[in-house]
Amino acid sequence: MQDAVNKTWSGRFNEPVSELVKRYTASVTFDNRMAEVDIQGSLAHATMLNKVGVLSGDDLAAIQRGMAEILDEIRNGTFEWSVDLEDVHMNIERRLTDKIGDAGKRLHTGRSRNDQVATDIRLYLRGAIDAIVGLVRELQRSLVDLADAHASTVLPGFTHLQVAQPVTFGHHMLAYVEMLGRDADRFTDARKRVNLLPLGSAALAGTTYPIDRVYTAELLGFDGVTQNSLDSVSDRDFAIEFTAAAALTMTHLSRLSEELILWMSPRFGFIDIADRFCTGSSIMPQKKNPDVPELVRGKTGRVNGSLIGLLTLMKSQPLAYNKDNQEDKEPLFDTVDTLSDTLRIYADMMRGITVKPEAMKDAVKQGFATATDLADYLVKKGLPFRDAHEAVALAVRYAEEKKRDLSELAIVELKTFSPLIGDDVAEVLTAEGSLGARNHVGGTAPVQVRAQVARWRALLA
Amino acid sequence: MQDAVNKTWSGRFNEPVSELVKRYTASVTFDNRMAEVDIQGSLAHATMLNKVGVLSGDDLAAIQRGMAEILDEIRNGTFEWSVDLEDVHMNIERRLTDKIGDAGKRLHTGRSRNDQVATDIRLYLRGAIDAIVGLVRELQRSLVDLADAHASTVLPGFTHLQVAQPVTFGHHMLAYVEMLGRDADRFTDARKRVNLLPLGSAALAGTTYPIDRVYTAELLGFDGVTQNSLDSVSDRDFAIEFTAAAALTMTHLSRLSEELILWMSPRFGFIDIADRFCTGSSIMPQKKNPDVPELVRGKTGRVNGSLIGLLTLMKSQPLAYNKDNQEDKEPLFDTVDTLSDTLRIYADMMRGITVKPEAMKDAVKQGFATATDLADYLVKKGLPFRDAHEAVALAVRYAEEKKRDLSELAIVELKTFSPLIGDDVAEVLTAEGSLGARNHVGGTAPVQVRAQVARWRALLA
Amino acid sequence: MQDAVNKTWSGRFNEPVSELVKRYTASVTFDNRMAEVDIQGSLAHATMLNKVGVLSGDDLAAIQRGMAEILDEIRNGTFEWSVDLEDVHMNIERRLTDKIGDAGKRLHTGRSRNDQVATDIRLYLRGAIDAIVGLVRELQRSLVDLADAHASTVLPGFTHLQVAQPVTFGHHMLAYVEMLGRDADRFTDARKRVNLLPLGSAALAGTTYPIDRVYTAELLGFDGVTQNSLDSVSDRDFAIEFTAAAALTMTHLSRLSEELILWMSPRFGFIDIADRFCTGSSIMPQKKNPDVPELVRGKTGRVNGSLIGLLTLMKSQPLAYNKDNQEDKEPLFDTVDTLSDTLRIYADMMRGITVKPEAMKDAVKQGFATATDLADYLVKKGLPFRDAHEAVALAVRYAEEKKRDLSELAIVELKTFSPLIGDDVAEVLTAEGSLGARNHVGGTAPVQVRAQVARWRALLA
Amino acid sequence: MQDAVNKTWSGRFNEPVSELVKRYTASVTFDNRMAEVDIQGSLAHATMLNKVGVLSGDDLAAIQRGMAEILDEIRNGTFEWSVDLEDVHMNIERRLTDKIGDAGKRLHTGRSRNDQVATDIRLYLRGAIDAIVGLVRELQRSLVDLADAHASTVLPGFTHLQVAQPVTFGHHMLAYVEMLGRDADRFTDARKRVNLLPLGSAALAGTTYPIDRVYTAELLGFDGVTQNSLDSVSDRDFAIEFTAAAALTMTHLSRLSEELILWMSPRFGFIDIADRFCTGSSIMPQKKNPDVPELVRGKTGRVNGSLIGLLTLMKSQPLAYNKDNQEDKEPLFDTVDTLSDTLRIYADMMRGITVKPEAMKDAVKQGFATATDLADYLVKKGLPFRDAHEAVALAVRYAEEKKRDLSELAIVELKTFSPLIGDDVAEVLTAEGSLGARNHVGGTAPVQVRAQVARWRALLA
Repeated sequence: MQDAVNKTWSGRFNEPVSELVKRYTASVTFDNRMAEVDIQGSLAHATMLNKVGVLSGDDLAAIQRGMAEILDEIRNGTFEWSVDLEDVHMNIERRLTDKIGDAGKRLHTGRSRNDQVATDIRLYLRGAIDAIVGLVRELQRSLVDLADAHASTVLPGFTHLQVAQPVTFGHHMLAYVEMLGRDADRFTDARKRVNLLPLGSAALAGTTYPIDRVYTAELLGFDGVTQNSLDSVSDRDFAIEFTAAAALTMTHLSRLSEELILWMSPRFGFIDIADRFCTGSSIMPQKKNPDVPELVRGKTGRVNGSLIGLLTLMKSQPLAYNKDNQEDKEPLFDTVDTLSDTLRIYADMMRGITVKPEAMKDAVKQGFATATDLADYLVKKGLPFRDAHEAVALAVRYAEEKKRDLSELAIVELKTFSPLIGDDVAEVLTAEGSLGARNHVGGTAPVQVRAQVARWRALLA
Repeated sequence: MQDAVNKTWSGRFNEPVSELVKRYTASVTFDNRMAEVDIQGSLAHATMLNKVGVLSGDDLAAIQRGMAEILDEIRNGTFEWSVDLEDVHMNIERRLTDKIGDAGKRLHTGRSRNDQVATDIRLYLRGAIDAIVGLVRELQRSLVDLADAHASTVLPGFTHLQVAQPVTFGHHMLAYVEMLGRDADRFTDARKRVNLLPLGSAALAGTTYPIDRVYTAELLGFDGVTQNSLDSVSDRDFAIEFTAAAALTMTHLSRLSEELILWMSPRFGFIDIADRFCTGSSIMPQKKNPDVPELVRGKTGRVNGSLIGLLTLMKSQPLAYNKDNQEDKEPLFDTVDTLSDTLRIYADMMRGITVKPEAMKDAVKQGFATATDLADYLVKKGLPFRDAHEAVALAVRYAEEKKRDLSELAIVELKTFSPLIGDDVAEVLTAEGSLGARNHVGGTAPVQVRAQVARWRALLA
Repeated sequence: MQDAVNKTWSGRFNEPVSELVKRYTASVTFDNRMAEVDIQGSLAHATMLNKVGVLSGDDLAAIQRGMAEILDEIRNGTFEWSVDLEDVHMNIERRLTDKIGDAGKRLHTGRSRNDQVATDIRLYLRGAIDAIVGLVRELQRSLVDLADAHASTVLPGFTHLQVAQPVTFGHHMLAYVEMLGRDADRFTDARKRVNLLPLGSAALAGTTYPIDRVYTAELLGFDGVTQNSLDSVSDRDFAIEFTAAAALTMTHLSRLSEELILWMSPRFGFIDIADRFCTGSSIMPQKKNPDVPELVRGKTGRVNGSLIGLLTLMKSQPLAYNKDNQEDKEPLFDTVDTLSDTLRIYADMMRGITVKPEAMKDAVKQGFATATDLADYLVKKGLPFRDAHEAVALAVRYAEEKKRDLSELAIVELKTFSPLIGDDVAEVLTAEGSLGARNHVGGTAPVQVRAQVARWRALLA
Repeated sequence: MQDAVNKTWSGRFNEPVSELVKRYTASVTFDNRMAEVDIQGSLAHATMLNKVGVLSGDDLAAIQRGMAEILDEIRNGTFEWSVDLEDVHMNIERRLTDKIGDAGKRLHTGRSRNDQVATDIRLYLRGAIDAIVGLVRELQRSLVDLADAHASTVLPGFTHLQVAQPVTFGHHMLAYVEMLGRDADRFTDARKRVNLLPLGSAALAGTTYPIDRVYTAELLGFDGVTQNSLDSVSDRDFAIEFTAAAALTMTHLSRLSEELILWMSPRFGFIDIADRFCTGSSIMPQKKNPDVPELVRGKTGRVNGSLIGLLTLMKSQPLAYNKDNQEDKEPLFDTVDTLSDTLRIYADMMRGITVKPEAMKDAVKQGFATATDLADYLVKKGLPFRDAHEAVALAVRYAEEKKRDLSELAIVELKTFSPLIGDDVAEVLTAEGSLGARNHVGGTAPVQVRAQVARWRALLA
């Protein structure tokens, strides 16, 4: 093996790989982030081998001692990674053998790199999912706080970017809390399929040693073992499922980003984002740009791309392991990093936005936001909905020509569109009246927003 | 409203939409597949409105009678869909109003098309998921039967399309049963997030009527209600999550398809696919082509494309509903159809394949499939694994030059590579010996394959 | 052949395809849009066969007569398409043989469906490209007219959706004319690679008949013949290249759509879109929604999806033809339809927008759009750019606190930020002064906008 | 500005960006590969500024001297990149100002980072395209050499992975030469749209300085200048068009990779790949795996992913520049690297494959490759094609049952399927006869293959 690296793969080979091939096929430059889980997996494997009598107590002790040293070297940055040794697994195994001799060579008994790498990725991804769910929760808390503070702050609710009906800013924030809640659930569901031990599948068919996979699984905190060796070494479902869930989360954040950018534009002026999340211009002295939400919006493409990369990768691959699979790591790692950084920065940024209730209130008045309320008012007075809809449409047209809001028309003017309109219409036409009337589960009434805030505080506690 | 269609949207509008715009924006040509769930949703909504006192008993009865007639018309194909009426919802509502007058106009009280369409899609998708999970199970049964019949049929296990180690054909089939098992789990997980009632969110903010959403949810068999109206009308997560799960299922089937195509090629000759799944050539009289697996492989692209279409669609959309969302239906429907047809045809096709054990057995001999067994043999005799690996590599090189399998070398020849080799090596070098030795959970030993068959039969019962 | 359809593919087959398989594998439901080009290709092929002596003059005459009848049947809708006959090619050939007997059977001499379908798609796509380039040009004309009318209409130029510097509305429209110009060039470049004849490649290897491919190419208006038969029957580059170009065009239109939606929102109020491109709401009487740009924005996802579908389809396919390739047509056709409809509707819609110069002008004042001009002014007075940038930043901060634009500050106030500021600064701080000063190729000065209008009018003439 | 870095963006800002934001928004870790083109662009800009009288000769000389030193520092690795300075442009500008003082501050006169970065990417991409076209040509040469050496080597031509007709290995190699030829053409077409100067567009609207863009374009070797400043700073078409072309090239190579993997599998055994492009197994001593083609196949997903990332990025972005655009660089750079490395390694690998003509010849016999020739033979004796097709299908069925090739049947046996069969059929049934008969442009006859080799040698000279 030691010679193999400098020369060839085995006695079967006549020439070593070229330098370009070495670089093209090596993964150590990116898979060394799995070093700690690789060691963790190897120690569990060795412990199991010892338990079933394949590895002596002395060998196990040597491996444990060697690995502890290697872990130190990695953590303090003195470990020397070598492209010649291709990947994180070979780098660590070689270092171990250099340190402890034949015991190191015996570590690979009853396993193969195929099941070793599958185990490592699952350990890594399990940890990443746990961290990400924590970050999602943190962002939710940040949004729930905003919702609480603005449970009755009036915001124009838009559909088609046209003013539709008044909502509260708190209600709007809670829409994203719901989305993120589904995201967390999806990651949690994916975790069930991640947290199974593939080790023991060996190269593809299992091994001839009397291994105890359930024991290894327990040592590593897995919920159970995978049930088919061919599937275990070729399966990358978890990477795809995770990345798909991540793409959805980024899509949600791209929507919130779009809104932050809109709201911070002087045309809206609904919020301000703290200076520490913005940048200026090299040429325009007046500029303060919402760089962070723009970058988040852009990074959505990155995660969508990784998802397509992974799906393309797995398409039409015959069983079992093929080298193509090495291409699973970079998109997966990049997705973990992108999503983690984005969630972290977002939770902080949302705590740093300044809400401008006056500007929101002013905007509600431009767009006839209470027209539906007027139609509902007429329906409650006996008009069929479709007829009420038409009467109000004509009233809106009239008000638009007069450049006034419906609430700014005189009762006598309103009566010309329906004799059913009475003095009691005034409250109906205010934003507050409109909000308060939508008082059912899921509705925008401040009392409902506060109930949802309480519900989420309990869930996030 | 009747006039609105022929003329304009409401009294606010000065001109009707152009013919091209009408065609461009209409969805009735594809969304009419939701007609039955649309009626189902409307009936539940009307029943709830009646319960809370917003709709009279007479109106409810009229709506029920009218909808029953419309359902008949749709089922017997006499319903006339009109592009002028834009979508399935308006077509049905108009027909209802034509039949029963003002009661029909009152049906839309307390709801909007935004929450109506969200409800319809969820009802539709819930049904589709249930059907698809059933089809996945049926394909799994088909594969389990094959695994049972071939629990000890020797197949060369490949990695990198090079012969690696012997496996059984049954073990190989079970790898796909595992993949499909995860697929079914993913669909089931997605169903939890689909099966919640958005109705009552109205256009975006909820409604001023005293609706009882929990009651409507019960009537429609939903597990609960959504908690935020803005989220409810703009959420398309379920379409994306479902399509992502479908893309993974198709990816799995693309892998099996690739293998069926390879195995049916004369270079492999491992199986034959029944003639009813194959086609010939317009020019080459000898051809029998595996059209079905090839099409399945190709259709993977279609589902990946739909997934990207949906993700692109939702990127950066501000809340709440935007017309973009209408583009969610075609990729979703196409994915449901593609996946359903593919699963159905696949379950049938797998029952129609002819396995050729002799050809598989012959192929095991070309590729030194038991080299690992020889290395393991040496390890058990005391050699460190890495040294055993090298000794066997040299033996393989020798055998390759002699154009013989390892099992065809004489013991004396083998001994030249290691003095540890004894007469007991013979059994180790047979495919059957190799298979039988991999006897642990997940391993390819026939006894393990049979245990997995039993496990799956219980799960699929 | 006649029997083959009812029974099996050829004497090699023992059973006919099942009904489900028939439906799953048939393409006639979507490929019959190629009927006319299929006939055109067959007639050219027959003419060539006759020229080289393989087909008699009588046979050719019979084929021409039969095809003329079939073309009539197709055009007047009486042709009966049969799924039993799988695709457009078999349907037409069968009908021909029914009409003219053995001469119809001889038409397929020296060709295969593999090269026939490749020829048909290229003929179809060539026509589609020509039509699309025409539609792109029409939209460009529509935009150039707008640019001409608004060559000096002031619009706030945004970066990061923050006000940056004044531009003209005409200049902004011309940005899209440039994008569409590149789009047209890309389609034209793709056409070169589309317009080559693959016919004569037969199934994969060419044919044993003494065909004259150059002659067939001339008859069909191709620029030349393809050079390798294996490549010719398996190549789908043209579909991918076309769809990639279409995705870019849709991306451009998604950007313009986003802007139209923003500009029509009451928060901007820069434009109005004619009622015929908008719809109302089923519940909100005041709504007028920009449906068309929203749908265009959404349909971007559809074309991106088709592109990924096609790339996934071709990934890893071994040569030569595989059935997977049948999946090329639906994404290609859908892309042609989506893009054509979108371009057509867009050209019309842009002619129907109402520009509101006052609103644009007002908006320029909110955002310190001339801050860069002030910095440039200071540089021209001798200050290094970076120092001028900082001085103006402080002036902006002061003006913001005073809630005034830079142009609304008194000269004495401005002088406190730099003693270099003199009375001549007034013109620099107006939008008109700022615009006029950017007077170089590509700049926003009205005179430059008019020059570009003239340049494009000449190019589009 | 110097202070700005340590503190804030400008006097407008109240707080500096946080460390996480700094890292999240910085691009210098990946955009520093544009350092040399950035300097090149700055020098041309300064030279132009001097020509038009905006920059003094002394300042220009200082800038030239400072940049020469910086270039040295970058090349010898002593330049210190700082994340605090965000990107490559700010890093270099700051260093310049440190070296030469106020002249450095004047360099940014009349430009903005928006047009500076657009210029840099175009310069970078132009160079990358030129290198890639060279690498494509080199791979084509490698394939043409193989085609030349095997112009008459018989290979079974497959469709649907079933044996179809004999082709030559040379013809098969030339199919890829054609694909790569289209790839080179696409890159060359894209280059036309890349090689235009955006500098002078400044932030978005042009600049107030009397710049001479045509002169700058000449200095930098651009074919011309862009025509609209808004378009110039927001356009990323070139990145998308390039990546789409790269995705197609990778798709072609994924197809060749699939074939190399199949051909090297013991089931085919048609070729061997040199050891230096293969790896072994950590557990299976006999393995020699075609790692390089497998990785290439996998990397197709990576490039498809980058394409989708870029398209998603640009979707719906309003003009002009938004920070999202910073996300264009990593997918673009990764695509350049992936494609360049892949082409380079492929050209070398193809020179290292060993062709095994005997195995190919044997395989032709398994699959009735000359059945079409027999049908054509019958047609030439007067039978309509469809009837000949059926007669041969029955002959194939008979031969299959006898386990013999058509060429191994006795003439008397063949005659039972058609009385038209005579002694002259023998040559028709050989692979060589079949090949030689396909003698027209694009056909597989050895003489045609040699003609294509000659044609390509001339084109590649």
